Amino acid sequence: MSAEAEEQDPKEKSKTRQSIGARKNPDTEMAILDAAAEIIAEKGIGGLRMEAVARKAKAGKATLYRWWPSRGALLLAVYQRNKPSMCYSNTGSLHEDFLHFAKDLTEIWQGETGLFFKAIIAESQSDPDVAEKLKDYHAERLEALATVVERAQLRGEISQKEDPATRAELLIGLMWQRLLNNRLDETIDEHIRMLANSET
Amino acid sequence: MSAEAEEQDPKEKSKTRQSIGARKNPDTEMAILDAAAEIIAEKGIGGLRMEAVARKAKAGKATLYRWWPSRGALLLAVYQRNKPSMCYSNTGSLHEDFLHFAKDLTEIWQGETGLFFKAIIAESQSDPDVAEKLKDYHAERLEALATVVERAQLRGEISQKEDPATRAELLIGLMWQRLLNNRLDETIDEHIRMLANSET
Repeated sequence: MSAEAEEQDPKEKSKTRQSIGARKNPDTEMAILDAAAEIIAEKGIGGLRMEAVARKAKAGKATLYRWWPSRGALLLAVYQRNKPSMCYSNTGSLHEDFLHFAKDLTEIWQGETGLFFKAIIAESQSDPDVAEKLKDYHAERLEALATVVERAQLRGEISQKEDPATRAELLIGLMWQRLLNNRLDETIDEHIRMLANSET
Repeated sequence: MSAEAEEQDPKEKSKTRQSIGARKNPDTEMAILDAAAEIIAEKGIGGLRMEAVARKAKAGKATLYRWWPSRGALLLAVYQRNKPSMCYSNTGSLHEDFLHFAKDLTEIWQGETGLFFKAIIAESQSDPDVAEKLKDYHAERLEALATVVERAQLRGEISQKEDPATRAELLIGLMWQRLLNNRLDETIDEHIRMLANSET
């Protein structure tokens, strides 16, 4: 939080205002995300400072702030770039689709990406800006998983009366808890069976 | 972690060995937990050092380590002392019992106790000793909530075939996620209905 307050120079902001809304230049974007990832690898998430990222990436601070208005936004951007993209399978069975989701996410989180996400969750508990960005990211992932539930509703597999986010949130909550408690290697077969049950 | 390694003096350990396993002296116990709580209030969880706790409580380091062998153990002890004890209701309905549990825990977590628990979870992501103690604590709470499910099984409300910890873990996972994402004020009625359903 304090990083932005200290570093966002109003003069610099106005100087670059004409390009607000411009597309990201892919080379600069990559240089910035690379620089942020290197700083995180070296100093941990808590050591990420916007000014140092701009300097390392040889990018203007105004550019950096235009694309990622806060440390939290930049952190989540690095996480999302590092995380292999998830495909939501469409097997015709909610149980199978949930199993695939849980298996894929477990694999992704068992490596460095999981450690990074654990650190983001930890950081978000004391940094309101990271907390806000994590909440947005979480809402977005929840919505993506809810589409899997919606498809099951459209197939008539489960009731259309329920909010598709309910089962999705229970599954994501379980996954977070397993990640945070270092229990990703334990079985979740019964949990998935329960969450995919058509009689609820 | 490093705190114990630096501070646990093997000579001191052997000097006090004769009293290992002795009951805690309630006055000393209270003085130690008070001292730890004050240090946490002042410096945050990361600032809790065993040596400073012993000094502030005017207790021997050997005594401190005998009762709480690590920073993690002491942290969880302070949390448990501060947290109002939870009663697991026994209304004769799993749905009601789960609702009571979620309502009580939400109330407890909406205050300082929730902030403290968020900080413990955050700390556990980078401190393996805190992680281990949190995992033990989590397993213990899970077991307590699972007894609520077991009672529903004994009543014939839900199948005896399932592991009573499954529903309990899904509910606790949801609660953790709500706490960590600052969403404790949002409804969980549909989640509870789903988790208490007899047809799964």
